[in-house]
Amino acid sequence: MKRTKLRYGMVGGDLSAFIGRVHRKAISLEETACLVAGCFSSKEDKNRSCAEFYNLEEDRRYQDYREMAQKESLREDKIDFVTIVTPNVTHYEIAKTFLEYGIHIVCEKPLCFTREQALELEKLAKEKDLFFAVMYSYTGFGMVKQAKKLVDDGFIGRVVNVNAEYLQEWLIDDIGKGDTSTTKLSTWRKEPKITGISNCVGDIGTHIENTVAYITGLKLKKVAAVLDNFGQELDMNANILVEYENGAHGVYSCSQVCAGHANGLVVRIFGTEGAIEWKQEDPNYLFVTKKGHPMQIYNRGMGYIEGRAALLNHIPSGHPEGLMLAFANVYNAFIQAVLNKSNGEPVTADELDFPNVSNGVEGVKFIHAVIESSKNGAAWTDL
Amino acid sequence: MKRTKLRYGMVGGDLSAFIGRVHRKAISLEETACLVAGCFSSKEDKNRSCAEFYNLEEDRRYQDYREMAQKESLREDKIDFVTIVTPNVTHYEIAKTFLEYGIHIVCEKPLCFTREQALELEKLAKEKDLFFAVMYSYTGFGMVKQAKKLVDDGFIGRVVNVNAEYLQEWLIDDIGKGDTSTTKLSTWRKEPKITGISNCVGDIGTHIENTVAYITGLKLKKVAAVLDNFGQELDMNANILVEYENGAHGVYSCSQVCAGHANGLVVRIFGTEGAIEWKQEDPNYLFVTKKGHPMQIYNRGMGYIEGRAALLNHIPSGHPEGLMLAFANVYNAFIQAVLNKSNGEPVTADELDFPNVSNGVEGVKFIHAVIESSKNGAAWTDL
Amino acid sequence: MKRTKLRYGMVGGDLSAFIGRVHRKAISLEETACLVAGCFSSKEDKNRSCAEFYNLEEDRRYQDYREMAQKESLREDKIDFVTIVTPNVTHYEIAKTFLEYGIHIVCEKPLCFTREQALELEKLAKEKDLFFAVMYSYTGFGMVKQAKKLVDDGFIGRVVNVNAEYLQEWLIDDIGKGDTSTTKLSTWRKEPKITGISNCVGDIGTHIENTVAYITGLKLKKVAAVLDNFGQELDMNANILVEYENGAHGVYSCSQVCAGHANGLVVRIFGTEGAIEWKQEDPNYLFVTKKGHPMQIYNRGMGYIEGRAALLNHIPSGHPEGLMLAFANVYNAFIQAVLNKSNGEPVTADELDFPNVSNGVEGVKFIHAVIESSKNGAAWTDL
Amino acid sequence: MKRTKLRYGMVGGDLSAFIGRVHRKAISLEETACLVAGCFSSKEDKNRSCAEFYNLEEDRRYQDYREMAQKESLREDKIDFVTIVTPNVTHYEIAKTFLEYGIHIVCEKPLCFTREQALELEKLAKEKDLFFAVMYSYTGFGMVKQAKKLVDDGFIGRVVNVNAEYLQEWLIDDIGKGDTSTTKLSTWRKEPKITGISNCVGDIGTHIENTVAYITGLKLKKVAAVLDNFGQELDMNANILVEYENGAHGVYSCSQVCAGHANGLVVRIFGTEGAIEWKQEDPNYLFVTKKGHPMQIYNRGMGYIEGRAALLNHIPSGHPEGLMLAFANVYNAFIQAVLNKSNGEPVTADELDFPNVSNGVEGVKFIHAVIESSKNGAAWTDL
Repeated sequence: MKRTKLRYGMVGGDLSAFIGRVHRKAISLEETACLVAGCFSSKEDKNRSCAEFYNLEEDRRYQDYREMAQKESLREDKIDFVTIVTPNVTHYEIAKTFLEYGIHIVCEKPLCFTREQALELEKLAKEKDLFFAVMYSYTGFGMVKQAKKLVDDGFIGRVVNVNAEYLQEWLIDDIGKGDTSTTKLSTWRKEPKITGISNCVGDIGTHIENTVAYITGLKLKKVAAVLDNFGQELDMNANILVEYENGAHGVYSCSQVCAGHANGLVVRIFGTEGAIEWKQEDPNYLFVTKKGHPMQIYNRGMGYIEGRAALLNHIPSGHPEGLMLAFANVYNAFIQAVLNKSNGEPVTADELDFPNVSNGVEGVKFIHAVIESSKNGAAWTDL
Repeated sequence: MKRTKLRYGMVGGDLSAFIGRVHRKAISLEETACLVAGCFSSKEDKNRSCAEFYNLEEDRRYQDYREMAQKESLREDKIDFVTIVTPNVTHYEIAKTFLEYGIHIVCEKPLCFTREQALELEKLAKEKDLFFAVMYSYTGFGMVKQAKKLVDDGFIGRVVNVNAEYLQEWLIDDIGKGDTSTTKLSTWRKEPKITGISNCVGDIGTHIENTVAYITGLKLKKVAAVLDNFGQELDMNANILVEYENGAHGVYSCSQVCAGHANGLVVRIFGTEGAIEWKQEDPNYLFVTKKGHPMQIYNRGMGYIEGRAALLNHIPSGHPEGLMLAFANVYNAFIQAVLNKSNGEPVTADELDFPNVSNGVEGVKFIHAVIESSKNGAAWTDL
Repeated sequence: MKRTKLRYGMVGGDLSAFIGRVHRKAISLEETACLVAGCFSSKEDKNRSCAEFYNLEEDRRYQDYREMAQKESLREDKIDFVTIVTPNVTHYEIAKTFLEYGIHIVCEKPLCFTREQALELEKLAKEKDLFFAVMYSYTGFGMVKQAKKLVDDGFIGRVVNVNAEYLQEWLIDDIGKGDTSTTKLSTWRKEPKITGISNCVGDIGTHIENTVAYITGLKLKKVAAVLDNFGQELDMNANILVEYENGAHGVYSCSQVCAGHANGLVVRIFGTEGAIEWKQEDPNYLFVTKKGHPMQIYNRGMGYIEGRAALLNHIPSGHPEGLMLAFANVYNAFIQAVLNKSNGEPVTADELDFPNVSNGVEGVKFIHAVIESSKNGAAWTDL
Repeated sequence: MKRTKLRYGMVGGDLSAFIGRVHRKAISLEETACLVAGCFSSKEDKNRSCAEFYNLEEDRRYQDYREMAQKESLREDKIDFVTIVTPNVTHYEIAKTFLEYGIHIVCEKPLCFTREQALELEKLAKEKDLFFAVMYSYTGFGMVKQAKKLVDDGFIGRVVNVNAEYLQEWLIDDIGKGDTSTTKLSTWRKEPKITGISNCVGDIGTHIENTVAYITGLKLKKVAAVLDNFGQELDMNANILVEYENGAHGVYSCSQVCAGHANGLVVRIFGTEGAIEWKQEDPNYLFVTKKGHPMQIYNRGMGYIEGRAALLNHIPSGHPEGLMLAFANVYNAFIQAVLNKSNGEPVTADELDFPNVSNGVEGVKFIHAVIESSKNGAAWTDL
């Protein structure tokens, strides 16, 4: 019988963790996958209370993710995919383990620490013929898909300049505090052993890279970056010149110390025929200009929205769809891809429209190139 | 043992119906209630396929809502509440039936057709000591709650003027088409037998009434309304003067023929000390002015957001929360209230923070007063 | 020889008066008229210092406007027009006097106190074949002209609803203060003997009426108004239902007690084919929607701006033009009309594109109908 | 007797030239200086018709600016200052000439071609004790002055990042057209002999540099720039990393090929305590954020606006003031400074609040450093 729903497990994401819950809620919005196994925390009590909350069967409450991967792989009713929402440092090992046991993957970004790890995961997923999503969630927004469609259709012509940023305020009080800072939110993000070689660029700069790449299809060639650590071990502010393989230039700015901004991802793509602007904090609109004509405000859900962007509407135009639905949209494609594969059916381009391990590789390359450039006085550094 | 999750059923809302799915998704976002019974459609095949999709047990797939109310009420594991998402005309009978069988209610707005029906349902709910939510979903937005808090705290002083509107474009092509119009979306809404005495005011004008009442706590005293039907049997455009019991005046406009607007609910409350503005299409912001000072843009999720608005955050500031989460927030309070009652625990004010049957009664009164006023040449008409 | 510049005089508007200076600066921006005579103040010292500042010849510094009208009319180099910027109460007598002496008029709004006065001035101007501008300055904005053009061209089809407002905050502290209030700015405006039968509607409501009439060409048929005086002798807040002669309805709101608003004139015109929105506080843009299409943001000065709006550009697109240039645009047409007449040349439609005495008459009618309606409990009142 | 008005002359700016007229109108708005001499064009007929239009005396209509400087300097009623609005290439010679004859200067930006010329003009002005304004007009906007005041007062703390841009669309069609392009507007700007070593950075990038410097008081230390010529001889697009002497970083972007932007100068200054954002296209507002608090929208003319910004109001809050008044504000200070000096009175800081020759020097240095950096592959280049 044709399957219409999947089973999934989760590593990380106990009840106190923000992002795990977002993943679970997003999946439940899609209504096509059910949580059946988990290893939510290395702390036993946290792990247990989360498993209880979701009513998991006793033998699918795992204290060790390796055991989970192994045991699940042997079950008749094994999980179809695992969602990995642990700290960055562990992504590589966990993802590798589940791949080896033949389980599809959804992993939070950034994919992992090093280029080598990233390429290895990409290779392994290919060898095992497994789907591997990396949760660059913003590409799930309908208007980002509409932007991509307009670029693909040639509406803005050839891209000649990109101006993109991701500004936050939340670490502003950590400026100049050095390692003694004890601000609640920022502890692990500022710890290289857990978070990797970059804080700000790794967390939010990579979203710029991914969103621009998704919309434009352009590949980054090189970067010239200035980072500011403001007394911390890792970066908190970045201004980056970029050059794409098509010769176009642009600038990416990301920061955690810009008062007045919360998750201010703004992407502006300028082409020979027009321009597109999208703002994550107001995601239901897309500002579209054909040169010589008035700027137009595209509104999610209206009749003139086409393609994937139209397919993914959950509610009518004018009723805002937020980040949770962008997550759901990523899962929508991923789950359908896994379902089709599981049913022996072909997987279409629409179903592959989720950020994947290769995008994750690009993200890791970007982070490394930026850090390297900044260490060399903003010297141009190839990706 | 203390219960932490509820069981619920649904009447209406098969897989092809938009609003039923929104309710189910919103409930699943709350993760504290599980769909176990349903009577989703009068059409057997639609009813069955929906029940199958949600894996309902065979004996809880009902073809008749009366049977559902009766049988469920006799079960040990009976549903705790029912969500009613049928066309307006049926709300009264269905709600009454479930109340009589002792089951808590969530009902779409408008509550019912007549003042008498509305008051009867209110009375019955009180007698049976049952919770009865009416889904005025916009009051679930965190920034609407923040607006209410600011008014309650006296931030804007005494309300002196209200300017509110709800503008849509979607029926613009029906202007002048008379009854022969066959536009896809508007058929049942323009049919008095199904939709009641009002189309536009009943569908969206009532949201203005409810949102203003929620934020300000003001009671409407009388209205003077001009309606335009543009050749249809029911209204499509309305401009309404209002007077509140405190003597303040205001104006409400709602329309389904205003090009450029999708679900443009905008509420502006002006007081002796300041003002508040909220826009449903951009719901994560609240524009707050203290007289003589710059307008401030409150941003959902920031540290200065307090009370219910802060409690209801699902994701950090800067990541937009849309309508689905507003629905979830309404359910959040309602479900908690039912849980507490079920556990024999007291129900707090926060848990009662959902739009209830009395708000539904006010909505019905408002619709009737507006229609009556317009028939009398915009004569002032008491609610 | 063909004249290229005019001579003008001014009544009222000494150096301490705001609006007189705006008129003089606006005229100097046009560079086609020169101030040569004046009766700037009833106070001798104020009158003298203003005349000195502008280097007026001794015999053209008048202490009495009647003397000025008479003496100027006898000179070879007499003034071509007079600008009247005195308090409302004096407009009628002064305008009448200069008309009788054959001098063209520019007068501040509102034109005068009563319908009879207004009609008399209109008749007199016609008999004397004199140009009579009434300074409804907002119609001078290029984007208001663009709005008018779009409506004239049928872009938005037949008008079906109008939603317009003019909100201010500046008198909020006068709420409830009664006649003892001594707030600096509001003294004369709240004095019926000086300001007429209305404060708020007469000062700013009339701008709504005029701007809508200019853009749409619609004539008001009747109004139903609720005014709030908040303890003052004259109105400070108004909500008004309107009906046009074409049967369309709308709502006008004006207020001096709305925190967060300075000169918030916003005009929205909805038609069967599209809609137009213009905001005085951000006047270089026009929001234009064709039904079923994205909203477009027209930007002053761009190539797609046409007709009068294009002709009146002073500086390139993207460089904001403010109110001073709107005043100048009104004078641009008026002065050119007077010049052509003076040169015995035909006066074109473009040159007649200034708010005139007939518009002033409509304004007075509007004010009276609104006041009358409000006294009769918001009863519909014909203009 | 104390003088209250000045006499001025103009070089360049015949009736067909846009910018000359803006200067003359701006001066007339200030009402304190009178045009009495001119050398408006090298073409005799153009020169004459302009002189006629302004009614200049015969002997003050000059065909040669050197003659004008010499003859005026000998007159009793000589011009107090000259405004230079000729193409960039001629600024240096003309300014030098008038300085040598002891006449104060207002000169369009950029000041001149080379660093050496710039420093020479600066030195000469100092030696001669003459005022020398360079028309960086945007610093004349009241809200730019308010921004400066807030930074000066420490409201945003120490500056840690700057994000500024100036985007235009108007040359988009010249992309890839090479030297054969004949687009109407761009001819002289793309000609190095007339315009200097830079087109885009010299025309608009320099405004970013100046506006940021004015608001923050920060001095640029070095730049790393990528320019795009798109087949033209001079630059049309630039992305520039900057470092200030206080160690802070930032990014400047300017472009003439960005669809949807007209004169999109946007300046955002981020500090340790807050942030400020100003947009030239909507100049009456200032977006001000104290960290941890809601963003505030400062509105020109309101009571909480202080200092120079308050002094320079021409019209009440809510009535937009545009670029013409920003020009007037620059002249306001400059003229008052010249008047005071002429009257033997001290010149205050407020009167020196105009962009001067030293700011012009900084602008030239900036342009040269950017061009040099771009030629060296975006290498860091000191100013």
